[in-house]
Amino acid sequence: MRTSEKLYIVKIGGNIIDDEDILQTFLKDFAQLKGKKILIHGGGKLATKLAKLLNIPQVLIEGRRITDAETLKVITMVYAGHINKRIVATLNANGCTSMGLTGADGNFILAKKRPIKTIDYGFVGDVEKVNPSLLLSLFEQHLTPVIAPLTADNKGQLLNTNADTIANEVAKAMAKDYEVHLLYTFEKSGVLTDTNDENSVIPSLLYHQYQQLKQEKKIFAGMIPKLDNAFAALVAGVKTVRIGDAKDLNQLVNGTNGTILSYE
Amino acid sequence: MRTSEKLYIVKIGGNIIDDEDILQTFLKDFAQLKGKKILIHGGGKLATKLAKLLNIPQVLIEGRRITDAETLKVITMVYAGHINKRIVATLNANGCTSMGLTGADGNFILAKKRPIKTIDYGFVGDVEKVNPSLLLSLFEQHLTPVIAPLTADNKGQLLNTNADTIANEVAKAMAKDYEVHLLYTFEKSGVLTDTNDENSVIPSLLYHQYQQLKQEKKIFAGMIPKLDNAFAALVAGVKTVRIGDAKDLNQLVNGTNGTILSYE
Repeated sequence: MRTSEKLYIVKIGGNIIDDEDILQTFLKDFAQLKGKKILIHGGGKLATKLAKLLNIPQVLIEGRRITDAETLKVITMVYAGHINKRIVATLNANGCTSMGLTGADGNFILAKKRPIKTIDYGFVGDVEKVNPSLLLSLFEQHLTPVIAPLTADNKGQLLNTNADTIANEVAKAMAKDYEVHLLYTFEKSGVLTDTNDENSVIPSLLYHQYQQLKQEKKIFAGMIPKLDNAFAALVAGVKTVRIGDAKDLNQLVNGTNGTILSYE
Repeated sequence: MRTSEKLYIVKIGGNIIDDEDILQTFLKDFAQLKGKKILIHGGGKLATKLAKLLNIPQVLIEGRRITDAETLKVITMVYAGHINKRIVATLNANGCTSMGLTGADGNFILAKKRPIKTIDYGFVGDVEKVNPSLLLSLFEQHLTPVIAPLTADNKGQLLNTNADTIANEVAKAMAKDYEVHLLYTFEKSGVLTDTNDENSVIPSLLYHQYQQLKQEKKIFAGMIPKLDNAFAALVAGVKTVRIGDAKDLNQLVNGTNGTILSYE
């Protein structure tokens, strides 16, 4: 048990990946972050662009991509190939030796194809279990894991998996061994009461306050699944969840920017 | 030092990857291979096909791909994404838990962009150094490394790197710790004296015999760089190099098929 040692688990959203300058700055900041850390990246618009160039029609329902076999191939190429390896090589060059992986690698995330209810999401995975031993052994070798949002089931089927969910599940699994601080970074300054006003950041959000704001419809609908998952992570032993701008990584870590969530 | 323990390092060529049935059978055989092992895969025609679909002109000089920035992106997507993760997930499902990686991951292969002499190969890497510690630690976790033919330089530039060369350099680096058997598998039965006759396999080839056959132009030109490298690996401590058909993996391991190279 090393539960007194800090571990930062940082998720960067797709919009950051799409902007080369912001991504480079973010990766420099991340490389300099002291101590143990894990990076989880989303996919951004590159997969959509590539699918378009290849004439593979893309269907999104409630912001979730319907993943047919051809789309899965595109996603695997873009997320696990292009984005993941570019991030790894850049972090290495910034002195942060990294190891790129998907949930399929070392079988460290076991997932299940989402069952068809009203919508058939195709090759989309729901996380069943995270095995932290691979990540722990990478730390022993002073390597920083960089995780692409793909998993596999026990039959060898690759599955497109939400990066927020992976960040959340990895954070919960690592909370047994570390003091985990989970950071969701994106292009906004934090949880806003007015999505059009970057100055309306809520600096700290308790669970009961969140419930009230949600009821009053003062939380942007797109943020609700992220926040619901974040509070669930806190219940499962994650120390803090922070939400904020990828450009402010250091301030997020220091607690001077963004929104810090606590359960009570 | 575990130099008495066998390690099989198997390279599969692009033609195997292009044929789904042969690939699946090969991966089943590889998964069942007892003991420590590493798989290195080539790229096949998928990258060329994707480049064509994306209207990225491909230039090959003496069978080597000129890798401009757009081609590098395609290669990273296909080799490190699609092919690597599909192999990893399939091996996992066959009971051989695997870890996909490129030379950039954990910085375990350091490469250098090939200097421009008469030809500018673009983003093509020559291997400078293999650090075996990452591979050794994966073995400790009972994981089988699956290596895609990409590396990076110390500035974070990804580089397209010949899979035969990677197999060879990894074999040499691992020979300090294991009894290494390097297997080059492809669509031919071995080193042939007549490329059109699969029955003309040379079962065993000594260095001085090879030199003579080369002089007599009885070795297919395309095989010469592979064989030159293979003999160099033997000099550097690799125990055997075997060359043969991917469909005969077990017989190659047993020494009943293919060509076995020895230095003397």
